[in-house]
Amino acid sequence: MELLEKKIQKDGIVKAGNVLKVDHFLNHQMDIALFNEMGKEFKRLFADRPVNKILTIEASGIGIACIAAQYFQVPVVFAKKAQSINIDGEVYSTKIESFTHKRVYDVIVSRKYLGPEDHILIIDDFLANGCAVNGLLELIESAGASVEGIGIVIEKGQQMGGKLLREKGYHVESLAIIEHMDEKTGEICFRH
Amino acid sequence: MELLEKKIQKDGIVKAGNVLKVDHFLNHQMDIALFNEMGKEFKRLFADRPVNKILTIEASGIGIACIAAQYFQVPVVFAKKAQSINIDGEVYSTKIESFTHKRVYDVIVSRKYLGPEDHILIIDDFLANGCAVNGLLELIESAGASVEGIGIVIEKGQQMGGKLLREKGYHVESLAIIEHMDEKTGEICFRH
Repeated sequence: MELLEKKIQKDGIVKAGNVLKVDHFLNHQMDIALFNEMGKEFKRLFADRPVNKILTIEASGIGIACIAAQYFQVPVVFAKKAQSINIDGEVYSTKIESFTHKRVYDVIVSRKYLGPEDHILIIDDFLANGCAVNGLLELIESAGASVEGIGIVIEKGQQMGGKLLREKGYHVESLAIIEHMDEKTGEICFRH
Repeated sequence: MELLEKKIQKDGIVKAGNVLKVDHFLNHQMDIALFNEMGKEFKRLFADRPVNKILTIEASGIGIACIAAQYFQVPVVFAKKAQSINIDGEVYSTKIESFTHKRVYDVIVSRKYLGPEDHILIIDDFLANGCAVNGLLELIESAGASVEGIGIVIEKGQQMGGKLLREKGYHVESLAIIEHMDEKTGEICFRH
């Protein structure tokens, strides 16, 4: 998606350790006009899929999932990290290792909001090694729901998450795929 | 807001310990059509304010903040709980005690996204004792930014957060204010 690639070129910052900082517009400050263009693009890419619910994970997936949901006219469910007293005991749970935070989270979804009748589009801001998406896929499988697709804002193409998910047959669409980035020059190259 | 009150009456569940569960439509599963009506209502209530940014806190404030931001045509910044390697060292920080989770969080906002030129509308899903909003107000004060208003989806009127904020002169608008709720009968009464 050209608009997004231009935004990443303009405002993304490459840091040591294969980190791309896009907190200017994606995951700390959020550019809602851009989110709307991304939401429309997700709808175009998954237009033929009978999506009845979008699933994401807190926190930085929630904004784009909500904006995109308007174009699908479906509700959003976000998986929660760690147990809350406001969640019923009746949950699906799994563990997800965060690339960014270098720790393992317990992640839960209430059984009330995910079931065999659901046709799920997963939406998340980043796909790197795929830990978050694989955790969400486990929750969907536990619920007996169907996966209609996986929509990602930025995929780090140097890491294996996207490749492995496509090999398993999932319909993965990433709005921008980073082919290469260089922390010394700040250069960011995209796969097309 | 009548539509919201009806939704709370229909799908809200009163639990022991003064807990109102609205995870059916607000803070786990999110009813995006309802969120759009709430976003329009926030715009109507703060139409005369020169808002240039919406500030919320992860996780459950993010969805309604993003949907509402479309009506104000401004970006959203969400305060983050605990330090992330993806946030620069240059942050404003405070501590917030969560009523729901019975714990204290470090909460941060990057200095890049909050400054003296900003006119902030705070949006959050719940207002009870006011810890989250007071934490956000501290961050705004540290940045030298202006507070244009505080928009809340559900205020628990039995707790003092809203009263104290209004006494301090803040423009607080809650789309629904709970006057009383009864865990035995499930009854929920609103303040008008």
